[in-house]
Amino acid sequence: MRLATLLGPDLKALLEDPAALREAFEDFHAEDVAELLDDLPEEQVVELLDALPIDIGADVLERLSADRQRIVLRRTERPTELLTEMDPDDRADILDELEEPEAQALLEQLEPEIIEETQELLGYENDTAGGIMTTEYARLEPELGAGAAIEELRRLAREGEAETIYHIYVVGYGKLVGVVSLRELILADTETPIAEIMTEKVVSVSPADDQEEVARIIARYDLTAVPVVNDHGEMLGVVTIDDVVDVVIDEATEDAQKMGGVVPLEESYFDTGIVEFVWKRGAWLVVLFLGQLLTATVIEKNQDALAATMELALFIPLIIASGGNAGSQSATLIIRAMAVGEAKPKDWLRVFGRELLVGLALGLALGCMGFGRAWFAGESVSAFGLAFAVGSSILAIVTLSTVIGSLLPMLIRRLGLDPAVSSTPFIASVVDVLGLIVYFTVAQLILHSVF
Amino acid sequence: MRLATLLGPDLKALLEDPAALREAFEDFHAEDVAELLDDLPEEQVVELLDALPIDIGADVLERLSADRQRIVLRRTERPTELLTEMDPDDRADILDELEEPEAQALLEQLEPEIIEETQELLGYENDTAGGIMTTEYARLEPELGAGAAIEELRRLAREGEAETIYHIYVVGYGKLVGVVSLRELILADTETPIAEIMTEKVVSVSPADDQEEVARIIARYDLTAVPVVNDHGEMLGVVTIDDVVDVVIDEATEDAQKMGGVVPLEESYFDTGIVEFVWKRGAWLVVLFLGQLLTATVIEKNQDALAATMELALFIPLIIASGGNAGSQSATLIIRAMAVGEAKPKDWLRVFGRELLVGLALGLALGCMGFGRAWFAGESVSAFGLAFAVGSSILAIVTLSTVIGSLLPMLIRRLGLDPAVSSTPFIASVVDVLGLIVYFTVAQLILHSVF
Repeated sequence: MRLATLLGPDLKALLEDPAALREAFEDFHAEDVAELLDDLPEEQVVELLDALPIDIGADVLERLSADRQRIVLRRTERPTELLTEMDPDDRADILDELEEPEAQALLEQLEPEIIEETQELLGYENDTAGGIMTTEYARLEPELGAGAAIEELRRLAREGEAETIYHIYVVGYGKLVGVVSLRELILADTETPIAEIMTEKVVSVSPADDQEEVARIIARYDLTAVPVVNDHGEMLGVVTIDDVVDVVIDEATEDAQKMGGVVPLEESYFDTGIVEFVWKRGAWLVVLFLGQLLTATVIEKNQDALAATMELALFIPLIIASGGNAGSQSATLIIRAMAVGEAKPKDWLRVFGRELLVGLALGLALGCMGFGRAWFAGESVSAFGLAFAVGSSILAIVTLSTVIGSLLPMLIRRLGLDPAVSSTPFIASVVDVLGLIVYFTVAQLILHSVF
Repeated sequence: MRLATLLGPDLKALLEDPAALREAFEDFHAEDVAELLDDLPEEQVVELLDALPIDIGADVLERLSADRQRIVLRRTERPTELLTEMDPDDRADILDELEEPEAQALLEQLEPEIIEETQELLGYENDTAGGIMTTEYARLEPELGAGAAIEELRRLAREGEAETIYHIYVVGYGKLVGVVSLRELILADTETPIAEIMTEKVVSVSPADDQEEVARIIARYDLTAVPVVNDHGEMLGVVTIDDVVDVVIDEATEDAQKMGGVVPLEESYFDTGIVEFVWKRGAWLVVLFLGQLLTATVIEKNQDALAATMELALFIPLIIASGGNAGSQSATLIIRAMAVGEAKPKDWLRVFGRELLVGLALGLALGCMGFGRAWFAGESVSAFGLAFAVGSSILAIVTLSTVIGSLLPMLIRRLGLDPAVSSTPFIASVVDVLGLIVYFTVAQLILHSVF
């Protein structure tokens, strides 16, 4: 049975029969149900969520779009039950989407223990380890025997008090002292204390660590979860790998948008309103446009040279585009290398050496091609002179752009800023202006001297 | 004790004392050891790997760079043991890095069972579900009771026959019929047969599915592993989430490089040779350069107009850059939206509508700015005429670029090609040529008519 068929004319009948409803929805993943619900009219979504068993309802609610979440929490008959049923990190996320007073009012209806837990999570920035961690994890004491530990895990799992029971954190006097896997526990002798089985070297993160850094650590060490520990060695929560996959995908999208000169979107492409869209793109376009105005000034200053040798105008786009493309390549490579930790600002000299060589090689290749094309354009000046001017300008600007394209992002990073922000169009703009200056300087030197 | 200190003068002593060596390395993660070994001289790497206990050695070997892996496999005293100890997917990967005859020779020394398993994995493309799956997973029969199942898992874990025992695949008559988690098993009554506990709706992938698609499914359904099933419903292996995190990071790097106009690098930034680097960047630069040559031709054809109104030359870079930037933004947004599954080629009409509106709004804003700047440049023609020509050209080209930038990647995708390939510079080149044509057409219409 396809999920969509459930929601046709039979929906009314289904809503009146809880058992049939549970059966109908149990077989589908909450993600699929949520996607379908995102397309239904608002009233039906609320009605349906209220009719669903509470566990399925909470699972679906956490996966709805932010808009729908707000509507459901405002109109549902059982906001408290739904919030209580959710995982702590998802509960904090959904409350974070609401207006402050509204979230506060809902929060106050929960149990004191849950309020405290949620407020703690709300205290962390969204994109930090603290912001994506869960506080429902399995923690045990080091003296416990393996057999008793499994019994305790059974209890935690039954009562839904741990998101995962496959990694158990060993906490003594409030501090994280080790980690043990369920695999190791079931392999061990039932009497062996956990302290003897656990791994003492635990890779952990701080609550303020950026989520990208957390993702990098999880990827590097092939972990499936990483504990979040504060400066005093106290354990605060766990970041699980499924949340990290989302982080990695979101960060890649954000980086791509930044590199493409767009202020990152909060929502998906189609969910972003036209006005927000214009604003997020317009901001950078205007900044870049203002920078590009310099190109007009450079040409204005060289108008006499241009009037004397009209053919120079022909190669303006070609020359600045060659520089722009070479610079974008370097910027892309180095920004990505820094993002995955392959290169650091301190490697700048090594990068400089490589890029200089690469830039010269590429500049030489393109310069020769430019020479060939310009050879056929010279009418008011010697064909060789024009060709030589165009060719050597290309060599110079491609080399320069390659070096600038790689070093500028490292400098920006070194200054503590994000190098991905609008890097490609920004570097292209810098290179456009520089390219024109180089072009006119080189051309006049050559055309006004020997030829 | 820091890891690096181990490898100073004490290394010789350490190599002669296996117990001390195991103890020294046991506390460090294989990833850290591998990183250190990547910087040591070749001889020492081989010597050290031969001295390490086989399980640690195999763990470290699979994490070395491809170069080092080849060297170790050629010179180690125990290639067969190391390969046998590795996880099947890692074993296939490392053999894939060797020359065909060399890999074949090594493969033949393994046990028949392992040879078969490895050859099966080698048969899949590297970047497909089959290429990243492991064949060591826990599979049980549906009739088994929960208690007996845990016993069987204990045996699998002890003998290292399953990479993970947290998800157990239930296979009846060779076909995948359900999945059960270790969590559910330990919660169940020991006598309950697995068939009664398992989930029958299993999300699975085909062996030929692209690894990016696998990552998308795992992220969407918050899975930690996904079974690989062929057309006949037979289970072939499992892709685990830790491999998927690597896939997502690698794909993001690859996409960024493609979008920046670089043929994706196989190795990291610093590990890529200069010649390969020049080649991978030069290929696209030359193609783009050839396209850009058209700009010279367009200007050549309009040389008379330019000679009549020299001020037109001033705004050539500004106009084509505005189009290029707007086009890159659209391309970036839509390519990323397609990559994460938010937009599909069939949505083109909806995208067209949005981008047309956005393009007009952005074009109007930039056009007004351009109008203002050009107002002050008109000397040989009326200031208003020039300003109007520049402003309306910008409006036209920004709108056009915005629409082209979003639709072209969808068309490329529709044709079955990868839209990320060189998209930004490619679209910028197309837009440069179009921009010039629009500019000269609009400018001549306006300047030669009313003003």
